[in-house]
Amino acid sequence: MPVTGDSKVIDTILKRRSVREFTDSPVSEENVNKILNAGRWAPSGLNNQPWRFIVVRDPETIRKLSECTHYSNIVAGAPLLISVFLDTEHSYSRTKDVQAIGASIQNMLLACCELDLGAVWLGEILNQNEKVNSILKCPLKMELMAVLAIGTPVPRERTSTRKALSELVFEEKYGQKWEE
Amino acid sequence: MPVTGDSKVIDTILKRRSVREFTDSPVSEENVNKILNAGRWAPSGLNNQPWRFIVVRDPETIRKLSECTHYSNIVAGAPLLISVFLDTEHSYSRTKDVQAIGASIQNMLLACCELDLGAVWLGEILNQNEKVNSILKCPLKMELMAVLAIGTPVPRERTSTRKALSELVFEEKYGQKWEE
Repeated sequence: MPVTGDSKVIDTILKRRSVREFTDSPVSEENVNKILNAGRWAPSGLNNQPWRFIVVRDPETIRKLSECTHYSNIVAGAPLLISVFLDTEHSYSRTKDVQAIGASIQNMLLACCELDLGAVWLGEILNQNEKVNSILKCPLKMELMAVLAIGTPVPRERTSTRKALSELVFEEKYGQKWEE
Repeated sequence: MPVTGDSKVIDTILKRRSVREFTDSPVSEENVNKILNAGRWAPSGLNNQPWRFIVVRDPETIRKLSECTHYSNIVAGAPLLISVFLDTEHSYSRTKDVQAIGASIQNMLLACCELDLGAVWLGEILNQNEKVNSILKCPLKMELMAVLAIGTPVPRERTSTRKALSELVFEEKYGQKWEE
């Protein structure tokens, strides 16, 4: 269901869900560019922009990448993969650069949601990072950070949960629980 | 200028700028909760939710924290700080958890933007992480990840830049530049 209105950004943040099953529809070139632009406009420490992306739509490459993860079906069923890397030669603080990569990924996931595309952030594939880099002819100075599988969602109700604010937030000092 | 319409999420991602000067207006309790909820609904590997937050509005605590960074004026001038921590006792993969923290921070920054609040993500303060934890009575197992300074923006044109997609993106394999 499309989200509109004054609080569309926050509503999209709250309603976004991981999508793991896609139809056969390709993602338009225009939408791929919109997603990448969202990723590129994330903030980063010193505006360092440590993210690099490889866009994969070739079925044979998708098939090979699907063999690098326990979640083969998700990858093999996606018409579009965006592999996200940290350019370690252009990293100035690993912690801050990895945070920035997370912000960039979240921008892309939110953009997908607004474009009525579904996406899932795959991390387990990092266990096979060298194999992924090899498939993409990518030097290891480019450190695999995530693969996003993207496509048109198969309709289905998707639910998720999060801890309550009272479990996550303190007021003024540690130990003093936040009350909403 | 408020952003509305079909592409509000992507427009907000592209138009968000760091805000470093705030008016004296406090941030409403309702808006603090909206920001925290946006942070809480970020994705994380295994839905691990490694983020923890300390909300600071006490002027004396803000003053003490302002002495932990070269950007004292920004911190001292903000009516609201959200200190973001990684709960290292509940971390399962440092890289993935730090990425998740970045996603959570970006959600909060985007929420601020939609609420017509300004915010800046402060990282340099990590150099004084032990002092920050001490001020907030926070054990060191909670690793400082960032401080967000938030308030009503002083009106001003704010610009920023990013690398072009052709510098960041490859098609199908490393080295094959993306053409928009």
